[in-house]
Amino acid sequence: MKSELDALMQSKNLDAFIVFGNAEHNPPMTYLTGGGHVSHATLIKKRGEEAALFFGDMERDEAAKSGLKLIPYSKYDMNDLAKRSNRDNLLAAAMRCELMFKDLGISAGRVGVYGIYDLSSIFGILSHLQTLMPEIEFVGEAREDSIFMRAMETKDEDEVNRIRKMGKVTTDVVGKVAGFLTSCDVGDDEVLLNENGLPLTVGDVHSKIRLWVAERGAELPSGFIFSIGRDAGVPHSAGNLTDLMKLGQTIVFDIYPAEAGGGYYYDFTRTWSLGYATPEAQELFDQVKEVYNQLSENFDLNVPFKNYQQMTCEYFEAKGHQTPLHTRAPVEGYVHSLGHGVGLNIHERPFSGLTAGEDQRLAPGVVITSEPGLYYPEKGMGFRIEDTLWVRPDGRMEILAEYPYDFVLPMKKWSK
Amino acid sequence: MKSELDALMQSKNLDAFIVFGNAEHNPPMTYLTGGGHVSHATLIKKRGEEAALFFGDMERDEAAKSGLKLIPYSKYDMNDLAKRSNRDNLLAAAMRCELMFKDLGISAGRVGVYGIYDLSSIFGILSHLQTLMPEIEFVGEAREDSIFMRAMETKDEDEVNRIRKMGKVTTDVVGKVAGFLTSCDVGDDEVLLNENGLPLTVGDVHSKIRLWVAERGAELPSGFIFSIGRDAGVPHSAGNLTDLMKLGQTIVFDIYPAEAGGGYYYDFTRTWSLGYATPEAQELFDQVKEVYNQLSENFDLNVPFKNYQQMTCEYFEAKGHQTPLHTRAPVEGYVHSLGHGVGLNIHERPFSGLTAGEDQRLAPGVVITSEPGLYYPEKGMGFRIEDTLWVRPDGRMEILAEYPYDFVLPMKKWSK
Repeated sequence: MKSELDALMQSKNLDAFIVFGNAEHNPPMTYLTGGGHVSHATLIKKRGEEAALFFGDMERDEAAKSGLKLIPYSKYDMNDLAKRSNRDNLLAAAMRCELMFKDLGISAGRVGVYGIYDLSSIFGILSHLQTLMPEIEFVGEAREDSIFMRAMETKDEDEVNRIRKMGKVTTDVVGKVAGFLTSCDVGDDEVLLNENGLPLTVGDVHSKIRLWVAERGAELPSGFIFSIGRDAGVPHSAGNLTDLMKLGQTIVFDIYPAEAGGGYYYDFTRTWSLGYATPEAQELFDQVKEVYNQLSENFDLNVPFKNYQQMTCEYFEAKGHQTPLHTRAPVEGYVHSLGHGVGLNIHERPFSGLTAGEDQRLAPGVVITSEPGLYYPEKGMGFRIEDTLWVRPDGRMEILAEYPYDFVLPMKKWSK
Repeated sequence: MKSELDALMQSKNLDAFIVFGNAEHNPPMTYLTGGGHVSHATLIKKRGEEAALFFGDMERDEAAKSGLKLIPYSKYDMNDLAKRSNRDNLLAAAMRCELMFKDLGISAGRVGVYGIYDLSSIFGILSHLQTLMPEIEFVGEAREDSIFMRAMETKDEDEVNRIRKMGKVTTDVVGKVAGFLTSCDVGDDEVLLNENGLPLTVGDVHSKIRLWVAERGAELPSGFIFSIGRDAGVPHSAGNLTDLMKLGQTIVFDIYPAEAGGGYYYDFTRTWSLGYATPEAQELFDQVKEVYNQLSENFDLNVPFKNYQQMTCEYFEAKGHQTPLHTRAPVEGYVHSLGHGVGLNIHERPFSGLTAGEDQRLAPGVVITSEPGLYYPEKGMGFRIEDTLWVRPDGRMEILAEYPYDFVLPMKKWSK
């Protein structure tokens, strides 16, 4: 939680940190400002003190919404800095950063560097700044282990409610998609037909998903997945837009809407087969559902997340599938890890890979996904079930948006 | 253009470059891969040679669409690197980068660093990599002057057509908004009423804008502007969602949709007053329109863009307004610069600020905005007109999506 930042800074021996970039699609900045359209901002926090937000004057209204200590960039005379730097933009920006640090009483110590932003210019600015302020040591942290990822790992109730709202958007949209697909007419070769009697494509469904998410005011990263057949067997294939929607093929629908501007996410997957399923697909789906259920029954407070990845691999290997437990980078079988934390990042702590740290646990307040799957692209099929769960402070695991797990969706105007 | 990259690398004395991050919302990566959902990729190009894309195996289908030389990350044994780095993730990632560079025959020289990505981890990786490969000098460039910004400055016809398509989305949506607003009933205090007879808010209009952009398959950065009254007088205020839509107040509508996933943008602004305008507002609007017209008549091939900023400031100062020409960071009057390039970045070269370089010109193939404006927040009004123009190779300036400039929009069901 945000209140842990000072302690986390101390544990990493950081005297201060600096965050670069916009308040949107930039989790550390969004986390501290609460979001809003503040672009090209800089935020500096000294350990134990209030964070200061440096902002462009044109964005003063948006900046004020952050509730942070505000310092407009216009305080620093860029024309003068441009002259003194001989019109070297990177040096001028570094000189302004030096003034900003000094205004906050920071002239030495270890300073963490954060933000999602233009690597090139920041790398250039920090190189100059290092020369200007040799007493400061700038520090980069591994993303998965940074003070922000650690602070964000535990959510407060307000954050959980924001995730829950995105869950409601998700299940509303998924329900609309299911309702639409099962209402379609079916033509030759078991191909679904659209409103005009033409074959329905994966691209048509993508458009509807996008629209239905937008109607609800949320943002949908364009890499969401709605794929059928072979593409469903490739875990991160978004789906081939020209594929036709047909009965009896596995459909993987993985959708992760976020608050507009890149806020909190929800993460969700269902696997469907329209009208009927082949016996082989039904058997593989049943295995995914069975391990999903076993996991749900076994999730327990403060257990390392990777223990459940181990359990999932063992289950699938007993059924004869390849998994990361004994196969390096498998492309068939169970090919990924069980889940991940969800918040301002679609993938954040705790992680569940077999090499994840023991400290990545189902601690009270974390929000995780559970998403076992099986992938057989050569057989033209793939399967995944995913929900987002909150590990409640009382120790209960709560799915933040309930939705049925049915694999075969009966068609309203067709039967075998 | 992309074909200039080798020459630009030579001019900056770069032997190679590395681009980190996703192919979405990451202009250098999007530029080289053509877009698509490739996440956590790395791209390395040696001067004079083909670029290589390093990608996660799960994204092989998306990676293949780039047409680049492909190398899967699975070629490098992360388990081994994790052990050899003593489970220091940043060091392990740096060791992998070292292997990647060596596989491409790069072990010394100046290497540019690019991409929009997590600053902290990349800064940490580069610090380790510098120790592992002391013969390489890593180089950061100022964003506005980087090889990518320079290559991107001149568009080919395919890029212009992609921008033009976003222009069509823009003017379609703007037309729908105008049609909707002018069809509203008007209630007490000249407040517009929604379909249910309740006061129409700025937030209601924002929702419709978002939906109409999504229907057209484009992406709308959440910082788009539709604001009225005082907020219209603050250039970057997105608009206060609870403000009521009223007649006779200035509305600034600045919209910049992009291809889904953060591709090419279009940038556009109109200023409206519904039903009627106050004489003071009409006079200020007429000034903005007059200088807009004068600029359009004077734009000429290869003239430095900032000359037109000078012309705009002189025009407005002659009318008694503050401008950046003689006022530092004005908050009233003409408070910004005339325009900017538009492409994969909403703001890119050429820039038009008074301190911009003489080399930022209306060269054949650039795509720019022209957007003079006036801002009087204390008077509760603001004005801006903006179009996106292509400087055609034949020297003609072409507005990429035409739309009328009317200030007063007559209400269909109301008259004074």
